[in-house]
Amino acid sequence: MQAMQKVALPEKFAAFHDHWSPRIVGELNGQHVKLVKFQGDFVWHHHDHEDELFLVVQGAFRMDYLDDAGAPRHLDLNTGEFVIVPRGVEHRPSAAEEVQVLLFEPAGTLNTGNLRTTQTVDQPQSL
Amino acid sequence: MQAMQKVALPEKFAAFHDHWSPRIVGELNGQHVKLVKFQGDFVWHHHDHEDELFLVVQGAFRMDYLDDAGAPRHLDLNTGEFVIVPRGVEHRPSAAEEVQVLLFEPAGTLNTGNLRTTQTVDQPQSL
Repeated sequence: MQAMQKVALPEKFAAFHDHWSPRIVGELNGQHVKLVKFQGDFVWHHHDHEDELFLVVQGAFRMDYLDDAGAPRHLDLNTGEFVIVPRGVEHRPSAAEEVQVLLFEPAGTLNTGNLRTTQTVDQPQSL
Repeated sequence: MQAMQKVALPEKFAAFHDHWSPRIVGELNGQHVKLVKFQGDFVWHHHDHEDELFLVVQGAFRMDYLDDAGAPRHLDLNTGEFVIVPRGVEHRPSAAEEVQVLLFEPAGTLNTGNLRTTQTVDQPQSL
């Protein structure tokens, strides 16, 4: 095995400043733990094969999504709250102010899901 | 899909009081998100097939483990820090005072791994 090390979230979040660009900070069971900062609006998208967890480490953001009937809904998430977006669900995170978010999702999950945009990050860096 | 709901960690942690008994609060991609409170010493054990993530939500705990050479090592984890224990690694969490921990691991992971003890929880409850 690789050496076991602990990961301190505050230290990792202090190490990058851009928005919408997830950094990989852990891998287990084929899943990645990523950290990302949101500010502003992301693009509407979905993931065909991956469920995604968003945990707010510090701050707040809004998750817009479409329900089964295609109707617009949203959740407001604050520090210490998470949501799981199931595969196939159209969604869009947005944040009025910068927010620190932890993601759990399968390794290889593309941040923009089914879309390719200027916000797409093909090869997230490890941090 | 089931309705999307957010999960508030403080509310969930306030809803149970026993130690070493993980509650399931989320499922995605065949993985479970669990919450658990530690106090005192757990049993040394390992998981043959599962990597486990331990994130400290509030408090502190110590993770003892054996390195590749079988030598005893430990990490002290505080609020906002996590560690991933790879499959096969013998480990034992312990906490001088009660600590709130979030676990991320494959669905079906047994808390005592390769052992069956009085601390084994066969069917973790959902919360």
